[in-house]
Amino acid sequence: MSELHDLMTAFAAIGSTGDGGVCRLTGTPADKQARDLFVREISQRGLLPRIDPIGNMFGVAMLMPASQDIVMVGSHLDSQPTGGRFDGAYGVLAGLLAVQALRDRAIANPGQARRNLAVVNWTNEEGARFQPSLTGSSVFAGSLALEDAYACRDGDGIALGAALDAIGYRGSSELEFRPVRYVELHVEQGDRLERAAADIAAVSGAWVTRKMSLVFEGEVAHTGPTPMARRRDALRAAARAIEALYSEVEHDNAGAHAAAARISVFPNSPNVIAGRVRVWFEIRHHNEAVVLATSNRFLERSQKEANALGVEISMAADEHRETILLDPAGVDLVHRVAGDLGMKALTLQTVAGHDALAIQRRIPVSLIFVPSEAGLSHNPREFTAPDALDKGYAVLTETLWRMVTAAS
Amino acid sequence: MSELHDLMTAFAAIGSTGDGGVCRLTGTPADKQARDLFVREISQRGLLPRIDPIGNMFGVAMLMPASQDIVMVGSHLDSQPTGGRFDGAYGVLAGLLAVQALRDRAIANPGQARRNLAVVNWTNEEGARFQPSLTGSSVFAGSLALEDAYACRDGDGIALGAALDAIGYRGSSELEFRPVRYVELHVEQGDRLERAAADIAAVSGAWVTRKMSLVFEGEVAHTGPTPMARRRDALRAAARAIEALYSEVEHDNAGAHAAAARISVFPNSPNVIAGRVRVWFEIRHHNEAVVLATSNRFLERSQKEANALGVEISMAADEHRETILLDPAGVDLVHRVAGDLGMKALTLQTVAGHDALAIQRRIPVSLIFVPSEAGLSHNPREFTAPDALDKGYAVLTETLWRMVTAAS
Repeated sequence: MSELHDLMTAFAAIGSTGDGGVCRLTGTPADKQARDLFVREISQRGLLPRIDPIGNMFGVAMLMPASQDIVMVGSHLDSQPTGGRFDGAYGVLAGLLAVQALRDRAIANPGQARRNLAVVNWTNEEGARFQPSLTGSSVFAGSLALEDAYACRDGDGIALGAALDAIGYRGSSELEFRPVRYVELHVEQGDRLERAAADIAAVSGAWVTRKMSLVFEGEVAHTGPTPMARRRDALRAAARAIEALYSEVEHDNAGAHAAAARISVFPNSPNVIAGRVRVWFEIRHHNEAVVLATSNRFLERSQKEANALGVEISMAADEHRETILLDPAGVDLVHRVAGDLGMKALTLQTVAGHDALAIQRRIPVSLIFVPSEAGLSHNPREFTAPDALDKGYAVLTETLWRMVTAAS
Repeated sequence: MSELHDLMTAFAAIGSTGDGGVCRLTGTPADKQARDLFVREISQRGLLPRIDPIGNMFGVAMLMPASQDIVMVGSHLDSQPTGGRFDGAYGVLAGLLAVQALRDRAIANPGQARRNLAVVNWTNEEGARFQPSLTGSSVFAGSLALEDAYACRDGDGIALGAALDAIGYRGSSELEFRPVRYVELHVEQGDRLERAAADIAAVSGAWVTRKMSLVFEGEVAHTGPTPMARRRDALRAAARAIEALYSEVEHDNAGAHAAAARISVFPNSPNVIAGRVRVWFEIRHHNEAVVLATSNRFLERSQKEANALGVEISMAADEHRETILLDPAGVDLVHRVAGDLGMKALTLQTVAGHDALAIQRRIPVSLIFVPSEAGLSHNPREFTAPDALDKGYAVLTETLWRMVTAAS
């Protein structure tokens, strides 16, 4: 499907990091450039562009003008600083082409479509510049207040509301339709499809995640003459905790995923023992009991090892993301469509967060994965073969058609 | 000596961090304010102010106008971000008062002084904003080229030369005298004097230091779905290396000091496994063989542990500071003076770097320590009792008098 590949190439050039990847942080010039191109593509394809107050962008196809109901399809155009070109953009651009194709199919088959259709680009899915992530979809779902979303600040103290104003994407009104279903197509970012040599995953739910941010309080001191026994070294305690996280997960051998990926150190001078360190930790597993048991063992061990160094630990943030079960009818539909198209499909749970997980608080959602080579993502070498992209697009389009034409 | 204590209080207010400490990084407004006050104090006390091209500041007393020879006394007014009020400022301000007092003593005892005397504030001793440290004293000693010093850049890319211009302390000419000796009075920053209940240390030399900056190269990837076995986590490798450093030093039990105090992580996003991490490590001991053996064991172990994680280590910097022996005649003189004044003196080696260690490349130096409570330094709670400060001042003044009046 060369039109899809060409569109993906065009968007990959925006915020290109020169190594195959992209850096399109929310509210930056690269984000604006991607949004501007997306508006042009929506309009040129005869869809109606809409921008809501949190900057979510819609391209609406009026398949059934008498209906207020709308099926939505999309993902996000923002990226991590070391983002790949598929993560998010694939779902938005495949969604755009699917909406256009189904608009044409509805015209060719009058009377079949019972509801309208829109492609969407959600604001700040990644949470790289502004936390929390999934911002636009959470506001749309009603789980995050608009004013709270506007007030999120980046590392330089700039608020998300101001950043949206600066690029001209703070819209003035809500989408005027009644959303009834949401479908998201995404690269898996893991290697389960690849290992099973399958084409498609219908996602049935999400792993449990616990995100913990710990602060290690020691005491600043000269790195040279300060007697070793008198030091209270916050960076050493943090280093022990990082290794403790991974080794507890390995020791369990229960298949949990874990990471410590962000650290801040004060004063971070080569000549001053760190007085205060903060580290962001996370543990994920499909079973909540494993997440709790492992994370609690990690916390106890870190506490004990820090105390042995005279360092105090406190929890600055402790976020639990509970198991999510997605609409089973949607899972069945994706399997039927994949089967009808002759593709091999699995049912998987998602390990990563996606806008679909925010939207399912409001309406039923379907999340569809295609394979990621070697499970690599948030990396410029993230890759999915053109043929695999096309298969995802075919499943997406047929799934959406059945949704807009279904009797109920 | 209330004049000394009052002066120290006045300087501690400049760049005060509100918790007893100071933050006076080189070339900042706080540095300018401290320098401005120092110039005023020099002038008001009838000394001749001089600024050299690297911003070293002198206050000269012409005790013997026919001589080109000058004895120098001083330290530094810059600080760490979490600096105490004694580190550096004590040596400069005690030196200022000593020069003033000896100028008066020379007037009262005509014909006794054989050479001139100057107090000095060396630029950027700490190396907190600009690396390397000991910048002004190294330029003065001839071991660092002026142009290289000017070119040192801070974290924002601002060059030291431009920073000195900005605060008006890039002088136009070298000091017009011939330096013959340098004396520096400093707080110990360790606890050896306190444990020995001694008043004064005559410093006979410096520990060997090896400073290593290691870069850990892994691969960016999504913290969630990326299969654990496929990850190449640079932060985990760095954490292991930090713990390896300390545990190798403890295992040796040879009395070495070690630290890892600065880290930089890319991309440092909570959702992206770190692809590249740099950590600054150091090991210090009086015996070079211990430093080499321990640091090499640390490097081997870190390499092995990183390789097990698929992470590559490379050495970005590897700085050896060799053993330094200070002028033995100076050590003897300090001991004689302390004895004559009824004080208990030790001979120690310094663990920390000091301007005296840079200056000894050009002329003989004497380095004198007074106790630091609990050995705490680079910390707002750094403390030396007023009485202990006075004892150091008394030894300093008498040592300088004997130097300027000695026959040779």
